[in-house]
Amino acid sequence: MTILTDPTHDPGLRSWVACADMPGGDFPIQNLPFGRFHTRDDLLPRIGVAIGEQVLDLRAVDAVLRAAQREEIAGAGEVLGMIAPLAAGDLRAFMATGTAVRRTLRTWLSAALAEGSPLERVLVRALRAQSECRMHLPCQIGDYTDFYTGIHHATASGRISRPDNALLPNYKWVPVGYHGRASSIVISGTPVKRPTGQIRQTGGTAPIVGPSQRLDFELELGAFIGTGNALGDPVPIDRADDHLFGMVLLNDWSARDVQAWESQPLGPFLAKSFASTISPWVVTMEALAPFRQPFRRPTVDGGDPGTLAYLDSAINRASGAFDIRLEACLHTPGMQSAGLPPVRISHSNWPDAAWWTLAQLVTHHTMGGCNLRPGDLLGTGTLSGPEPENACCLQELTVGGKRPFTLPGGETRTFLENGDVLILQAYCERPGARRIGWGGCVGPVEG
Amino acid sequence: MTILTDPTHDPGLRSWVACADMPGGDFPIQNLPFGRFHTRDDLLPRIGVAIGEQVLDLRAVDAVLRAAQREEIAGAGEVLGMIAPLAAGDLRAFMATGTAVRRTLRTWLSAALAEGSPLERVLVRALRAQSECRMHLPCQIGDYTDFYTGIHHATASGRISRPDNALLPNYKWVPVGYHGRASSIVISGTPVKRPTGQIRQTGGTAPIVGPSQRLDFELELGAFIGTGNALGDPVPIDRADDHLFGMVLLNDWSARDVQAWESQPLGPFLAKSFASTISPWVVTMEALAPFRQPFRRPTVDGGDPGTLAYLDSAINRASGAFDIRLEACLHTPGMQSAGLPPVRISHSNWPDAAWWTLAQLVTHHTMGGCNLRPGDLLGTGTLSGPEPENACCLQELTVGGKRPFTLPGGETRTFLENGDVLILQAYCERPGARRIGWGGCVGPVEG
Repeated sequence: MTILTDPTHDPGLRSWVACADMPGGDFPIQNLPFGRFHTRDDLLPRIGVAIGEQVLDLRAVDAVLRAAQREEIAGAGEVLGMIAPLAAGDLRAFMATGTAVRRTLRTWLSAALAEGSPLERVLVRALRAQSECRMHLPCQIGDYTDFYTGIHHATASGRISRPDNALLPNYKWVPVGYHGRASSIVISGTPVKRPTGQIRQTGGTAPIVGPSQRLDFELELGAFIGTGNALGDPVPIDRADDHLFGMVLLNDWSARDVQAWESQPLGPFLAKSFASTISPWVVTMEALAPFRQPFRRPTVDGGDPGTLAYLDSAINRASGAFDIRLEACLHTPGMQSAGLPPVRISHSNWPDAAWWTLAQLVTHHTMGGCNLRPGDLLGTGTLSGPEPENACCLQELTVGGKRPFTLPGGETRTFLENGDVLILQAYCERPGARRIGWGGCVGPVEG
Repeated sequence: MTILTDPTHDPGLRSWVACADMPGGDFPIQNLPFGRFHTRDDLLPRIGVAIGEQVLDLRAVDAVLRAAQREEIAGAGEVLGMIAPLAAGDLRAFMATGTAVRRTLRTWLSAALAEGSPLERVLVRALRAQSECRMHLPCQIGDYTDFYTGIHHATASGRISRPDNALLPNYKWVPVGYHGRASSIVISGTPVKRPTGQIRQTGGTAPIVGPSQRLDFELELGAFIGTGNALGDPVPIDRADDHLFGMVLLNDWSARDVQAWESQPLGPFLAKSFASTISPWVVTMEALAPFRQPFRRPTVDGGDPGTLAYLDSAINRASGAFDIRLEACLHTPGMQSAGLPPVRISHSNWPDAAWWTLAQLVTHHTMGGCNLRPGDLLGTGTLSGPEPENACCLQELTVGGKRPFTLPGGETRTFLENGDVLILQAYCERPGARRIGWGGCVGPVEG
């Protein structure tokens, strides 16, 4: 595989940027994720690349390349062409240009930020401290689709209403998904207001209206579409990866009491659409390439009935999975005042959770002709693993609110309370590759 | 009510535009709907207003007003300011400006197009024949939500899977809805390709993959959002009308066999997202004002349990309904070759169908904090009336495909066949008001 010989993945590669090579850091030179930001002295959003605790500001790169004697910098003209939409703050336009441009820019950025690069002298002026960058959504999101690929989550969710028949008959055949709300997707750090909704009363016929009492998180990954497909033009499974740009962490906040009442027969609606939080840094499919691995479905009751031909391919079987570790941490107001750090309440790993690969989601989504556009977001669904501690939402962790858990400092939780901060983390590590990560997805809950 | 004294609704008002006053026409001077179009000699889309069989091209209006001695035309400066986004083709920006601007422009357009207007001399140059206009989607649609307000449709749909308990317990309390696909909304006339999907086999466990054998239409109305609301900021019921811009016809194409297999537990997905067709002309809420009437829920089994406080108001009860007549017509290839005209297969009337008003949809959608944005589209759901001939989809008309109907020329249908053209119509008429209409929403089915 050419992936392993790509010099941008060389685990020995180091950057001249201070602290980029800190052990355990999420943003070494092997990562190079894209994000959108502004700073106090330049309020106009533009795209940057995270490196260590810094951001390479691509509008500033554009300026310094123009100011430098361009002939002194190999390939400067081509780079200026590639980064023009990024300097203008339009990641979606860059997503639409496809994988070849993205790979070329990645190779240039990797060389430019590597130790010994002659460009250090000019690019050092384009660095900003992450702590001084205010992050935005990475791009305008046209449509957001949320899938349900976590089979342990689907089983646990089904068990609540159908104890003897938890997993529905379609689950193992069709990548179940639904359209989510694009307008209410917010960036990490945005306070999330507890939604008011209709809630069924036990014993009464009329529902009550009030703040959700069962506010939950869901730990997911989100994939951004790069190049789109035309309406009526399905994407074959072996071309699906070409349509993926990169990934973010996704918290699909859920009001379980609202959801239980409203969801029949058309699915979740206001129980989800009050907010969905994503991480600010989009880790590209190129950065994730070293963490691809053979796709093997989780072992579950009833076994695996096989995959329909349009969703199956040798490439998908050989390298359709990604070894991404996931964590959810909670920081309550009590813990904050006691000076206690956030506590991990759940951890999982994508290959242990997912019944479908990203490529299968793209191919299924388009099989009837539906068009995906650059910047569209596909959620994986809650990525719970097989064991209780791998449950990636509170509904599962507390068995529908019946088993509270105790936190450091003695507080207990079933669902989220006002002032709680929920922090999602994801990272990739394996022998022979440099660890990369997402830098977290933070959601403070407000009353 | 001031509505009835608005001179733009005067049924005696006539236009200097030829044929604008044809009896039965959809676009008299009392209508003035907005649409987006280009022509062969100017490919750049801009907004126009339909009048008779013509379109007043607002980019051309902008040009003629600038070219004329502006001081000769009263209010020309203000008009130029209002129509700037329309001349640029951006209806969404105009939607965002709100009702006051829209009313001011309507009043000016009505006077300018009225018989005896001194502006006839300059505006005649801004008219284009509708037959020469290629229509586009009226605006960029951020999010599309489809509701389920037709209680007879919900009952008939529920009866298929639950004969004894057709209407679910939540239906009469909560405006059930789901997020639809925005990317695949197409304009009237666009060929709709029969989707391929997973279909459950009777007797087998594995689904088959193939073209849908149960392709259906759904006759709906769609409402465009004008001004939006901020995330976390619900819209009270008495302010909801201020957030509505206007209405279109909506054909929510549905692949019933795909839908039956994929929809549990998260709702319809690919069965709907292959295409949704809307009419090109957006009839504004101002044009519809004379057709407002008291809102009375349809009489149904089990009666009316009442309305929760957040969805109830005196204004909504007094004038929340619109008397809009609806029709679906079919034109098969056989009828086309035999020279037969399209045949009406269904007719309905919004007040007979709808359990919820548009204002209630806006208020419910935002109750948990979800933000609506200018240009978002809300579908009413299938607006079937109480009688069999009022069924607004084939699933109902043919009782799930069990009762084919016969067409002029002798053909029969249960679901749509390739080459069929489905035509939706809507209009308003009542004594003392001038009839207005939508001009149709056409969908040709391709194999």
